[in-house]
Amino acid sequence: MTETDWGMMAQNWLDRLAACSQPGPGVTRLPFTRQHRAALAVLHDLMEGAGLAVHLDAAGTLVGRRDGPTDAPTLLMGSHQDSVREGGAYDGIMGVVLPVLALMKLQQDGVSLPFATEVLAFADEEGVRFPTALMGPRALAGTFDMAALDMCDRDGISLRRAMRDFGLNPDAVPDLKRDPSQCLGWIECHLEQGPVLERAQQPLGVVTGICGIERHSVTLTGRAAHAGTVPMDLRCDALTGAAELVLAVEGVARRSDSVLATVGSIQTRPNVVNAVPGEVSLSIEIRAPHDGSRTAARAQIETMARKIAADRRLAMDMRHTYAQPATPCDTAMTLALSDAVRAHGHSGLMLASGATHDTSAMADLCPVGMIFTACRDGVSHHPDEFVAPDAMAQAVAALATALAQPGIAEQRKR
Amino acid sequence: MTETDWGMMAQNWLDRLAACSQPGPGVTRLPFTRQHRAALAVLHDLMEGAGLAVHLDAAGTLVGRRDGPTDAPTLLMGSHQDSVREGGAYDGIMGVVLPVLALMKLQQDGVSLPFATEVLAFADEEGVRFPTALMGPRALAGTFDMAALDMCDRDGISLRRAMRDFGLNPDAVPDLKRDPSQCLGWIECHLEQGPVLERAQQPLGVVTGICGIERHSVTLTGRAAHAGTVPMDLRCDALTGAAELVLAVEGVARRSDSVLATVGSIQTRPNVVNAVPGEVSLSIEIRAPHDGSRTAARAQIETMARKIAADRRLAMDMRHTYAQPATPCDTAMTLALSDAVRAHGHSGLMLASGATHDTSAMADLCPVGMIFTACRDGVSHHPDEFVAPDAMAQAVAALATALAQPGIAEQRKR
Repeated sequence: MTETDWGMMAQNWLDRLAACSQPGPGVTRLPFTRQHRAALAVLHDLMEGAGLAVHLDAAGTLVGRRDGPTDAPTLLMGSHQDSVREGGAYDGIMGVVLPVLALMKLQQDGVSLPFATEVLAFADEEGVRFPTALMGPRALAGTFDMAALDMCDRDGISLRRAMRDFGLNPDAVPDLKRDPSQCLGWIECHLEQGPVLERAQQPLGVVTGICGIERHSVTLTGRAAHAGTVPMDLRCDALTGAAELVLAVEGVARRSDSVLATVGSIQTRPNVVNAVPGEVSLSIEIRAPHDGSRTAARAQIETMARKIAADRRLAMDMRHTYAQPATPCDTAMTLALSDAVRAHGHSGLMLASGATHDTSAMADLCPVGMIFTACRDGVSHHPDEFVAPDAMAQAVAALATALAQPGIAEQRKR
Repeated sequence: MTETDWGMMAQNWLDRLAACSQPGPGVTRLPFTRQHRAALAVLHDLMEGAGLAVHLDAAGTLVGRRDGPTDAPTLLMGSHQDSVREGGAYDGIMGVVLPVLALMKLQQDGVSLPFATEVLAFADEEGVRFPTALMGPRALAGTFDMAALDMCDRDGISLRRAMRDFGLNPDAVPDLKRDPSQCLGWIECHLEQGPVLERAQQPLGVVTGICGIERHSVTLTGRAAHAGTVPMDLRCDALTGAAELVLAVEGVARRSDSVLATVGSIQTRPNVVNAVPGEVSLSIEIRAPHDGSRTAARAQIETMARKIAADRRLAMDMRHTYAQPATPCDTAMTLALSDAVRAHGHSGLMLASGATHDTSAMADLCPVGMIFTACRDGVSHHPDEFVAPDAMAQAVAALATALAQPGIAEQRKR
């Protein structure tokens, strides 16, 4: 098989998997549905064809395993099977297909690894159906909160009920906890979902870590007024204050080399053409690969927001609504992946992941590493999502190389 | 009667009129309703008590007339009887009550005027019930568009039907057109609806003109993106562009001495916490007492908007959605009102009206002038709307003085 063949093969399997979708544009495949079951059947074929022993665990994770030498630890790889509504054919699922192909390639190349390997297809990473996610990796890491089983989808079906209807035993989820000493590490291959690799003309990149995220809800309150009767200097315009804050948030991120900061949502009251806005609420999201940079950016933003509010005679309320610490990737794992990527002639571009992945939860279990593939126009979560078959072929090759290097096996000794 | 008595009397009549309201907070009195009819009964009593001859014209305007010498022209005064929903007890209706009291005062003082006087209570200025307004003054000026009679309220009742049900003959509206040579002028007394007089500690102000208004709808289109995966320098964030534009609009108005400019409404898409906004639509409203200043401000804003869009790689669409030219008040009329206000010990503060009034339509018929009364906290269109009885007493006195001065009568000779 040539490199081109591996890319074509990946695309073929992904096409079959994309057909496991609700009708409509793109792919809609939610956990514990008929579409999920159809995708599992396809993945079962793929894994069995690669000589893996396949089973579905109590959390709905499809596991394809190749044993290693007696008592050898296991290297875990994979990603999630689910999509957002009207999403793409690569997000998550590509990270299940490519490591299976890498194992197939190693077998064809006659390489036998000094450790066991498993490829995992988690049920739910996107959190679209239930207001929770990452059950599969959390079950393995022992961090799954059983109370989440009572959460309901919009039809009022609880996660517990949905899992039972799917033939699973949710009560057995705690038994899935793995022994960290038996886990060599976790590798996830995912599309970048951003434009960095495409801009750099690199099919692959190596992830340094997953950004921490914090979110704030800010309300600025001035005084609504008739837009014709209140002179400019007597106004307490909440929207002009909000505009300064939006630019301040952007400025803080632009002056940093790693922080992303975004005002994504804004609501104005009364929001009519002939009234000075009296109240504006907006969201601030800050992401950074290092929690310290994120905290520093937040402090700067908060100081600037207080100054803007004071200067404009606005009341300000800033609430911290969400926080998730950064997940650094394991250094040795990242170096091993980088060496493998560079061995195939690529620059080994290192970048942080601004999005959350199954890797975030797997980091509680074992050392983690991630490879990104370039995606067209940085588009993801959309029917137009596309990863070139060549990039997938490069990922299969790099994964196979990484696994065969001493680096991964040596994780055990650290 | 002392000054205090006139203020108390005004407040008494306004209290009776405020009771002519739909249930709920504040005053809700829409045209051609039971509440309108109840208010007309109260105004009829008031006008008859002042010795005026009262009739209801075909447009639903209550007219109280005192004849002058044979063939003498008529000075028109008044305002509108209707309110917004849950509005206040002064907006419009105060401008009917105070000139009646001024005529009463002149009679008590034994002053007979060299012209006829009429006080008019127009049916509809706010345009709340029907998507049209100013029928009363437009009928007098001959500018009423009869097609507006087919406009319907939210219950599907046409203006024509509502007027007929109210006992009026809408077909006779064109006959209401007045002969401009018989109209000496129009004086409206209205609450300021803004904070300027209160800040200046003046009960009365004299209006130089009614601002022209133009409105624009601007859409900035960038590229929606994942807030975690697109670096700051690769974003096309429509909201940060909009924020610059909001501040540019404010800056243009702040650097002018007469222009008001407001972004009152803003909509962002997709408007979620974790996405870079791809599209923002906002309204820009510009008001100025001189059309030239308004046009110049618009040109500056448009230039700045184009630069912001270009610098940020955003597409921009700017549509002119509304325009209404400025209505300057008549110089001689304004001077006569100013002299009268100053004769009572006030500064005669001159200010433009940012809001539209019946005066805007009356200017098509004859020379116009306006007096503003201070209102508490600049609040209007709200149940808390309040004009101090003393300010109303000052207005009665100033109106009476203005009418008795030679200035108004001399309008005829110009």
